[in-house]
Amino acid sequence: MNDKKLSTDSYKGVRDFYPADMAIQRYIFDTWAKTAESFGFERYDASILEPSDLYKAKGAENEEMVNEQTYTFTDRGEREVTLRPEMTPTVARMVAARRRELAFPLRWYSIPSLYRYERPQRGRLREFWQLNCDIFGGDTVAADIEMIALAYQIIIDFGAMPDMFTIKINSRKLMQEQITDKLINADLFPNYLRLMDRKNKISIGEFKLEEKKLLQDGIELTVSVNDEVNAILTGLENLGIKNAEFDPTITRGFNYYTGTVFEVFDTHPDNNRAMLGGGRYDNLTSMFEGEPVSGIGFGMGDVPMQNFLETHNLLEGKIKSAGTQVVIIPMTAEQNIFAQSVAMQIRQAGASVSTDIGTQKVDKKKARASERGSQYIIVVGENEVNSNQLTIKNLQTGEEKTGLIKEIISLI
Amino acid sequence: MNDKKLSTDSYKGVRDFYPADMAIQRYIFDTWAKTAESFGFERYDASILEPSDLYKAKGAENEEMVNEQTYTFTDRGEREVTLRPEMTPTVARMVAARRRELAFPLRWYSIPSLYRYERPQRGRLREFWQLNCDIFGGDTVAADIEMIALAYQIIIDFGAMPDMFTIKINSRKLMQEQITDKLINADLFPNYLRLMDRKNKISIGEFKLEEKKLLQDGIELTVSVNDEVNAILTGLENLGIKNAEFDPTITRGFNYYTGTVFEVFDTHPDNNRAMLGGGRYDNLTSMFEGEPVSGIGFGMGDVPMQNFLETHNLLEGKIKSAGTQVVIIPMTAEQNIFAQSVAMQIRQAGASVSTDIGTQKVDKKKARASERGSQYIIVVGENEVNSNQLTIKNLQTGEEKTGLIKEIISLI
Repeated sequence: MNDKKLSTDSYKGVRDFYPADMAIQRYIFDTWAKTAESFGFERYDASILEPSDLYKAKGAENEEMVNEQTYTFTDRGEREVTLRPEMTPTVARMVAARRRELAFPLRWYSIPSLYRYERPQRGRLREFWQLNCDIFGGDTVAADIEMIALAYQIIIDFGAMPDMFTIKINSRKLMQEQITDKLINADLFPNYLRLMDRKNKISIGEFKLEEKKLLQDGIELTVSVNDEVNAILTGLENLGIKNAEFDPTITRGFNYYTGTVFEVFDTHPDNNRAMLGGGRYDNLTSMFEGEPVSGIGFGMGDVPMQNFLETHNLLEGKIKSAGTQVVIIPMTAEQNIFAQSVAMQIRQAGASVSTDIGTQKVDKKKARASERGSQYIIVVGENEVNSNQLTIKNLQTGEEKTGLIKEIISLI
Repeated sequence: MNDKKLSTDSYKGVRDFYPADMAIQRYIFDTWAKTAESFGFERYDASILEPSDLYKAKGAENEEMVNEQTYTFTDRGEREVTLRPEMTPTVARMVAARRRELAFPLRWYSIPSLYRYERPQRGRLREFWQLNCDIFGGDTVAADIEMIALAYQIIIDFGAMPDMFTIKINSRKLMQEQITDKLINADLFPNYLRLMDRKNKISIGEFKLEEKKLLQDGIELTVSVNDEVNAILTGLENLGIKNAEFDPTITRGFNYYTGTVFEVFDTHPDNNRAMLGGGRYDNLTSMFEGEPVSGIGFGMGDVPMQNFLETHNLLEGKIKSAGTQVVIIPMTAEQNIFAQSVAMQIRQAGASVSTDIGTQKVDKKKARASERGSQYIIVVGENEVNSNQLTIKNLQTGEEKTGLIKEIISLI
């Protein structure tokens, strides 16, 4: 045994979820799950451990993530393993593996934990969770509209108003059509996308200067909505979604996007950042054998979600209280087991019931039950044990009733 | 881009959770959570990443796990990190960190994923989940009784009958009192516990032979129930729990147990194995600064739980069907967006609704909705778009009704 005392700190850049933190996380996950399922999305999951090859195969632009930002190590059997930094390669692997048995279009969602070795900062942690929703094998504009409608509805289902966020839509195809032949060299297209992505973070002068280096001489470039993006915007309006707009600065980082791309931004000046992003991909399963699978998906992090809810004061009154509905308080330790048998009987009726078997005084225990949001208390002492008559107190109204356990249960 | 095609296999010893697998896992986790919360247990969680020191500090008998069975690696910042192989050190760390603010006794539970580098075999995987329940700072026998009652109730709440499992109880203290002074050397006590643990796996002859090597000459050792274990058994009977018994072969692997220890066994001959185990510890937080915290806890794995449910046929009828309550089927892609707007309106009323935007024929889509357990279908074609009159079909009864969307919603 080592005598030096250990630190109680968690590993750097990750969170401990004490019950109060966990209650918020569960509220977020439960709301995500409920809305996704109301659209017919089915939940899947996989291990956090993946063969490292899964991330290497995706192409050069992910090199930074693979080489510098993943948790990659060699296991005791000499396999190279990576803690998944994103869910898309995993779900591509799963879909590719059962491509022939699955009935497309698939609607799948997951709430995986993801791992990135980044410098911890606001909104960026080394372990975080992400809602991932995808429609696989839905190649119509209806799928694009549905994914954006789902993103919208998820935020609304947290109690948000449409003016609290805005949906920005672009299309990789549109950008390709309107930009490629105006560049000095078609290969500079990814560079142009990256410049557009930075447009709102740099000055107009700097943007123009950088743009000039990419465009052919004398060209003034403006991009405009095409039919496809227009169909999406009109479709969303038909569904009552009016906070969506075309925005050519939305380009998305990942290389696999080939069509519609979109992001959702918080409109609050204190939290003006993307909280969700996604897009359409033509061939997500290209790294595996077999027919390509196309689709559209998005990801939404737990930290941006919670920031949004806190910024707009949307968590108030939504988090489950810590207390059980009923608390049984034994007067002394002598009544502990009697208290437990009362608790077991009331639980049969479907209520949540705890016994306060601590060594505090009864008044302290009553106060604690009240603080934790319990609705009823039942104090049991020698009299209650002998007579089998119990007194239940409603902590909201102060009302008390006495009776046999059956009668007490009927009150709850 | 690498041209060699990747395998779609997951990492060795872990599972992919396709929607059907995930539905079972969620049913297990939801039932665990519901029963734990009905006893007043609050949920917590933490990262899978922990400083490796947390496991090294626990003492020599865990050396095998730390040295050979953990996923341990050095991160990009030269920190030694371990993927948690069990939850107890993590929860001890969290409790120790907030020892002064927390109101004891605490009832906490978690459903963490755990990682062990083991040879994959039936019931043993490299990534698995475990329900962990603990009462911290409850030093009475009532806490021991409650933990065992909770273990019992969890299994009952899956629809099990009491004769499907048996609860075996022992006490480290009892063993110490009755055995230590009969050994050749008191230091051999852990060896005697390990031998007891193997008693049912080896022959009586072999057991006697091994026992002789540990005991003083001429001693015939029998251990018998003490007052404490008796109080637990009586307390459980008072709660209506009759499938518990004293069993001196229950010794538990982990060193931190100091009092009551218990395991739950499946009684089915095909699956005769421990599905849950736990015990009382006097000082779980000894590796950190500050006052010791005592408690009692147990862990229950997802794989043994699922094996139990499958062995006793307890999953039947319990798993949520894949389909939404209502499926809207567009006759052609022209009606996709109309179908989505109908879906959005019905969802407002609280129903789950999907649109089948696939390219299959309408009859195929109808059959699919039925197979997936949906209750209603609404087929929309040009007529429906023009008239706004919809026809809803109840897939169970075959009954059809036509009306405006408001009237349709009132039927669901």
